[in-house]
Amino acid sequence: MKFVVKNLSISTGNPLIALMNIKDAEHYDLHFADRIRIKTKKKEITCILDITHSKEFVKEGEIGLFKEVYEEINTKNKEKVNIIIEKKPKSIELIKKKMKGQELKDDEIYTIIEDIVKGKLNEIEMSYFVASTYIHELTDKEIIALTKSIVDTGSTLNLKSKIIVDKHCIGGVAGNRTTMVVIPIIAAAGLTMPKTSSRSITSASGTADTVEVLCDVSFNKEKMKKIIEKTNACMVWGGSMNLAPADDKIIKVEHTMSLDPIGQLLASILAKKKSVGATHVLIDIPVGNGCKTACSIRANMLKKKFENIGKKLGMTIKAIITDGSKPIGNGIGPSLEAKEVLYTLMDSKKGSNDLKEKSIEMAGLILEMANKSKKGKGKILAKEIFESGKAYKKFIEIIKAQNAKITDPEKIRYGKYKIIFYSQKEGIIKHINNDFINKTARIAGAPHDKYAGILLHKNKNEYIKKNEKLLTIYSDSKERLKYAIQFFSNNKVYDINKSKKY
Amino acid sequence: MKFVVKNLSISTGNPLIALMNIKDAEHYDLHFADRIRIKTKKKEITCILDITHSKEFVKEGEIGLFKEVYEEINTKNKEKVNIIIEKKPKSIELIKKKMKGQELKDDEIYTIIEDIVKGKLNEIEMSYFVASTYIHELTDKEIIALTKSIVDTGSTLNLKSKIIVDKHCIGGVAGNRTTMVVIPIIAAAGLTMPKTSSRSITSASGTADTVEVLCDVSFNKEKMKKIIEKTNACMVWGGSMNLAPADDKIIKVEHTMSLDPIGQLLASILAKKKSVGATHVLIDIPVGNGCKTACSIRANMLKKKFENIGKKLGMTIKAIITDGSKPIGNGIGPSLEAKEVLYTLMDSKKGSNDLKEKSIEMAGLILEMANKSKKGKGKILAKEIFESGKAYKKFIEIIKAQNAKITDPEKIRYGKYKIIFYSQKEGIIKHINNDFINKTARIAGAPHDKYAGILLHKNKNEYIKKNEKLLTIYSDSKERLKYAIQFFSNNKVYDINKSKKY
Repeated sequence: MKFVVKNLSISTGNPLIALMNIKDAEHYDLHFADRIRIKTKKKEITCILDITHSKEFVKEGEIGLFKEVYEEINTKNKEKVNIIIEKKPKSIELIKKKMKGQELKDDEIYTIIEDIVKGKLNEIEMSYFVASTYIHELTDKEIIALTKSIVDTGSTLNLKSKIIVDKHCIGGVAGNRTTMVVIPIIAAAGLTMPKTSSRSITSASGTADTVEVLCDVSFNKEKMKKIIEKTNACMVWGGSMNLAPADDKIIKVEHTMSLDPIGQLLASILAKKKSVGATHVLIDIPVGNGCKTACSIRANMLKKKFENIGKKLGMTIKAIITDGSKPIGNGIGPSLEAKEVLYTLMDSKKGSNDLKEKSIEMAGLILEMANKSKKGKGKILAKEIFESGKAYKKFIEIIKAQNAKITDPEKIRYGKYKIIFYSQKEGIIKHINNDFINKTARIAGAPHDKYAGILLHKNKNEYIKKNEKLLTIYSDSKERLKYAIQFFSNNKVYDINKSKKY
Repeated sequence: MKFVVKNLSISTGNPLIALMNIKDAEHYDLHFADRIRIKTKKKEITCILDITHSKEFVKEGEIGLFKEVYEEINTKNKEKVNIIIEKKPKSIELIKKKMKGQELKDDEIYTIIEDIVKGKLNEIEMSYFVASTYIHELTDKEIIALTKSIVDTGSTLNLKSKIIVDKHCIGGVAGNRTTMVVIPIIAAAGLTMPKTSSRSITSASGTADTVEVLCDVSFNKEKMKKIIEKTNACMVWGGSMNLAPADDKIIKVEHTMSLDPIGQLLASILAKKKSVGATHVLIDIPVGNGCKTACSIRANMLKKKFENIGKKLGMTIKAIITDGSKPIGNGIGPSLEAKEVLYTLMDSKKGSNDLKEKSIEMAGLILEMANKSKKGKGKILAKEIFESGKAYKKFIEIIKAQNAKITDPEKIRYGKYKIIFYSQKEGIIKHINNDFINKTARIAGAPHDKYAGILLHKNKNEYIKKNEKLLTIYSDSKERLKYAIQFFSNNKVYDINKSKKY
């Protein structure tokens, strides 16, 4: 069948999709999601068929190519191509197998993941895969195969060090920037820590968003390696390096339904660690209202799974369950957090003692895991490195290697517009809802507005008087600040003791 | 948030989708599949957000509207509109409930189906719904609610008759055109039979495809009613009348994975019958290799479910399990079947005795169900109507009411190109694979090429000599005929006794 190429100049985001007019589809008995092979003189490619009724988009005799296909096959607009009908990929049958509740074999999982990465499955088909793993929870064996498949279908960082450490926090705790304090302690102790972080999806700021206030975070693999060779560590955004690419594609269809199947969660995190070559990993699982793991039964189950599956993947993993019932530190939002991190590393009174304590605790555990200190002595070593100023010095070194923008916390500004909330009563702050704090900061503009966020004047367990300052919301947009005020006022963010409502 | 409308002139097929540039999405913290309300001065509409990276498609400050949204909101290109962020529809949580294995309540199912019909769910979200009902099979209560929801969210045919009969065949049997013979017998007996049929998706010809050789099949509801008032019956394509519209949308995401969840299958069929007001329905469940219901355990289970659920929906349903192990009649493909049906109704030797027998049997059962004859006497009455020529006369009457194109079978032509296959050995034909026969006919061009198809010179259980004519394949395309020959030659379509292979 001969068709004329129409360049649609539209990206699908990944799946390889070609668009045919309904008349041609009927004529050739082709259906939505059928597979076709498009052949030019030089190249050929298998695509997923989509069908349009609108001839303004693709008319009879034309084959519309989305950007991914057009670029891959290297054709030209109006070029004639040959089209051959193909079978659906084997993955479809494998996804149905999992839907029926059967365990998938290692090579079967690899086949599915490879097809996802190569754009051979459309989003409907991927949704069936995610649904099947959500309903029929992945076995440990499947999670291991899934992790390996995600690693093997992406690129990997091949560092020379024998010991490579890493950490990960399951997320959900506002202002939780321990990573930025732990890294320089570890790197100053001589260990290699190639940290990739994500940008925020649902919280006020991801580690990458906060680091970006101070320096660049987007690097390719080669530049990342150079930063690590120079400083022992890095703090970069993981999205620009094609490490574990399957993961991002799966997350898209999960996110649509706000799903978080436990097997996918484990594989997603472990694959990212494995792909940078991590040998020793500390996992932080915060528990508390408004956290990803609100319940401690789930947290304990996760801890066990991480440790067991990590071992089978050849990694030493230690998972710790921490208090996620309140924000860490007082700044929430990229600039506010960046400033607080800098002050904390300088061991200034303007820093956060919470952040210092939690970071030293975690760094200590990593030092022990990697045999940099004896069991039970890691915390002492971490504290020494921190308080000697070595960690701060290392931090500045890393920032500089990443093209520093700001190193002086005084120079970090907050949003142009602000509002201060005062306590309407007296008492002890019993609870702060992380989820609502995050949402308020996001509505104010964080993380895209780097200057937006929240400064807590009082944290959990602190005593507050009536009319004393509770928090300040910042934003660079008057309108967004207004929305944030509305949201904050309409939700019970604080729980102050001995009265009905804040 | 103010945006400028960009008319994309592209149809999504149903979901209400608006497209935003990634820069704006990041700025406003919006994500794929978030819901937004678009407001013009006069109207407003809630859409599903999709995000593009390509500014050639939708640039910053623009909101791209797919055809469904553009037409619904009645806006103009470049008009300024207001956009408000909305919550996701309740359906999302309900689909997750079903994914967790919980039974859905009647109103919850209605909510999901209403959202599907109104384009409020995207295809990913619909896929999760189908996956959930495939894995956690729908209970009878859920199937009933689903059927009612599909009926209530579409239009219905309100005929005056107290008794309205209908029939349905689960499908998969090549050349199974009993519907076209049963209808005139029933209508001649004075019963009302408002038959809507589908076009073929996987077989060589759907009833609507075959009828279309003889007359029109696309009518709106009002015209359909007039045909029924005039002739007691009709043979129209169901797709043009908005009866049970949810069904088509669900079928699309099922078809992608070739899924056929039993609950959806039952609801789909029953809803179509209910929406034309059927009171008495005969369901034909063919069993045999290459049928939809290859196994008789599944067939018996289906039979019970149809009868029980039908009763709860206020319909009298009788399901019969028939022999689906061979084609009915000798013509396969629209023209071949139409010709055979006409000859059969004329009681000519050129007709099919199989088709006559099976149709009389089924018509007899319907006459008994609707109390047109005593129990056990329906077949006699049906035979009488058939053999007296009343059924043939009624058929011509219906065809004429549907703007007859051809009434004389002699005038029906077959494909311009043909090939005759001869038996390579002698023996009894033990088996004919319906699936392969259908595929061969489809590859030859059926049903879109109305003249393409297969003429069987010998059917199952018949004796054939070596070099005697086995079948002829027809097509209007030389190239397609070549492919059909290849497919037929490479597959074991026939099983002739006492030798290794045909």
